[in-house]
Amino acid sequence: MEDPIYSYDTLKHFSLAILKKIGCPDDQAALATEVLLKADLRGIDSHGIARLSGYVRLWEKKRVNSTPAIKTVYETISTAVVDGDGGLGLVVAPKAMEIAIEKARKAGTGWVAVRNSNHFGIAGYHAMMALQHNMIGIAMTNASPLVAPTFSIERLLGTNPIAVAIPADKQPPFVADFATTTAANGKLEILQRKNQQAPVGWVQTKTGQPSTDPNEAKSGGALIPLGSDREHGSHKGYCLGAWVDIFSAVLGGANYGPWVPPFVAFLEPPSDPVGQGIGHFFGAMRIDAFRPAEEFKMHMDNWISRFRRAKTVDGQEQVLIPGDPEREMNAHRIRNGIPLNPKVVEDLKELGTKMKVDF
Amino acid sequence: MEDPIYSYDTLKHFSLAILKKIGCPDDQAALATEVLLKADLRGIDSHGIARLSGYVRLWEKKRVNSTPAIKTVYETISTAVVDGDGGLGLVVAPKAMEIAIEKARKAGTGWVAVRNSNHFGIAGYHAMMALQHNMIGIAMTNASPLVAPTFSIERLLGTNPIAVAIPADKQPPFVADFATTTAANGKLEILQRKNQQAPVGWVQTKTGQPSTDPNEAKSGGALIPLGSDREHGSHKGYCLGAWVDIFSAVLGGANYGPWVPPFVAFLEPPSDPVGQGIGHFFGAMRIDAFRPAEEFKMHMDNWISRFRRAKTVDGQEQVLIPGDPEREMNAHRIRNGIPLNPKVVEDLKELGTKMKVDF
Repeated sequence: MEDPIYSYDTLKHFSLAILKKIGCPDDQAALATEVLLKADLRGIDSHGIARLSGYVRLWEKKRVNSTPAIKTVYETISTAVVDGDGGLGLVVAPKAMEIAIEKARKAGTGWVAVRNSNHFGIAGYHAMMALQHNMIGIAMTNASPLVAPTFSIERLLGTNPIAVAIPADKQPPFVADFATTTAANGKLEILQRKNQQAPVGWVQTKTGQPSTDPNEAKSGGALIPLGSDREHGSHKGYCLGAWVDIFSAVLGGANYGPWVPPFVAFLEPPSDPVGQGIGHFFGAMRIDAFRPAEEFKMHMDNWISRFRRAKTVDGQEQVLIPGDPEREMNAHRIRNGIPLNPKVVEDLKELGTKMKVDF
Repeated sequence: MEDPIYSYDTLKHFSLAILKKIGCPDDQAALATEVLLKADLRGIDSHGIARLSGYVRLWEKKRVNSTPAIKTVYETISTAVVDGDGGLGLVVAPKAMEIAIEKARKAGTGWVAVRNSNHFGIAGYHAMMALQHNMIGIAMTNASPLVAPTFSIERLLGTNPIAVAIPADKQPPFVADFATTTAANGKLEILQRKNQQAPVGWVQTKTGQPSTDPNEAKSGGALIPLGSDREHGSHKGYCLGAWVDIFSAVLGGANYGPWVPPFVAFLEPPSDPVGQGIGHFFGAMRIDAFRPAEEFKMHMDNWISRFRRAKTVDGQEQVLIPGDPEREMNAHRIRNGIPLNPKVVEDLKELGTKMKVDF
């Protein structure tokens, strides 16, 4: 059975109405909706409208502030620390990225650490904000602890994604956006819904043994850092996740490691916080702080087209450039609509009923 | 049979004498020797004195300039592009990192792209230069193409390492330094010397099939990006390697992708260069451009001690903090000397004979 399909506009109006119901000002509801639905458009279904009811539950628990006073609490010419005032990460993050871009305009580069925020949707959205300014964009965030460092059975890190967006000229931009685990949690959620097994190397049991059960993290198990096991470099994935955690949280004063508040509202945040909310880190680098933008973009075109025409392994059509699959999905879903898993549809209908908004 | 052991001072005097013979000024010979031997001290044997004869062969081919005029060719308050004038990366890189640190002193952060350089030893050395200034250090470099992007059989990327060094207070610093491949090339060289097989997922054959032969890259095969295969996230390792390549080379005007000149002198550089030499990228971020350094370092101590005391998988003694093994090795080898593989000793003796320097 095919998933039912919804137009972008339908989902947009629903998200807008819900966010206004929880008290978001119009402009913030619009911004949050745009960020949220960019995930659905790009095919990262776990981070889109499927999360809307989760954000509302956090608001009900007073863990999301729908009218945040987002402010810069410290700055130098190339850096800033932003306090999100407990707002939706969907709102706090693009505001902070704008500050990074503004800093880069003046200083060549801009770097912003954010505390007191919440989950920010897809990292790629924020990194890509830099592209139209002829800048490189970087975005990272920490997240609820689900990942065990190499050799450990404790969940001390989130799936802590990194996004890097780099402009080209005639070619579409290079947009890498990936969790620093073997597989993103959203991939496991898809297997859970379909009752399918995960490949060995994605999760471990609560005693640290290999497992193929996508539900392991619900019973004390953990996700595994990129690399899968020590012999295949999981310590490098652990380094990456740790790097993201420290930049996103220790630098700006958010919670880090096992102290990061859980995304699910039914779990209470740790009672001994080491900072405020969850944290993000953003960077913007003006291309022409290094070389003329036209020159750079011409070489990016050359880089991209060389990699795209690389000889493939038998059976593979083409070598992909980071961002290719998401861009194609984006174009497809704008034309044809966004398919939603029936469980997500049910969840949104319940949300609509509760909040008195038609879905 | 145990490897013969040499004192740090013995290797230092030999390296200094050789580098002076090829024309390096005294101060540059000293700096290059320090960077080179830091690899041996930290246990990254592939990047240390074992490479000295390789550098000399590049100099013989006029591909290394022993008296480079290293200069900043473009800058903003937080960025610079440095032209290494074909010098040893061992000299160019620390000079460029110094510029990044100087920029960070004034602007909060400093970012330097380097072109026209050569292999720079271990990335960790350069990143760690920031620590004593209460700064975070970042270093990356591209390298000879040995790695096939996901789905490809062509070698288009180097092992492109990333290093991130972050200061703590009472705890030793966090120092991540890793190739963006499943295994560094040095790990394969060790297996080659010992005639041992590699785990599946480290290399592929020239047709892109899995292989356990550590010599694959010598017969048209390739190293594999971190993740080992598509199902386990090798596309993320490819993203990382590509990111390093673009920051290190496209930004500053060095050669990128398959155009990076090979480290081995018996292979000619491509005849159609797209830039100059190989490229690096460095960053320095002043901690107190974000929050008071003492506060940050107190939280880093907390981060580090929490992760170090994480519950382990049965049979594992402790969860490691990035930098732990290398720091312990450094202390051990300063006390007890540096073991050299007999093939490396033989190579250094030949080098000594050729250059009329006793080994």
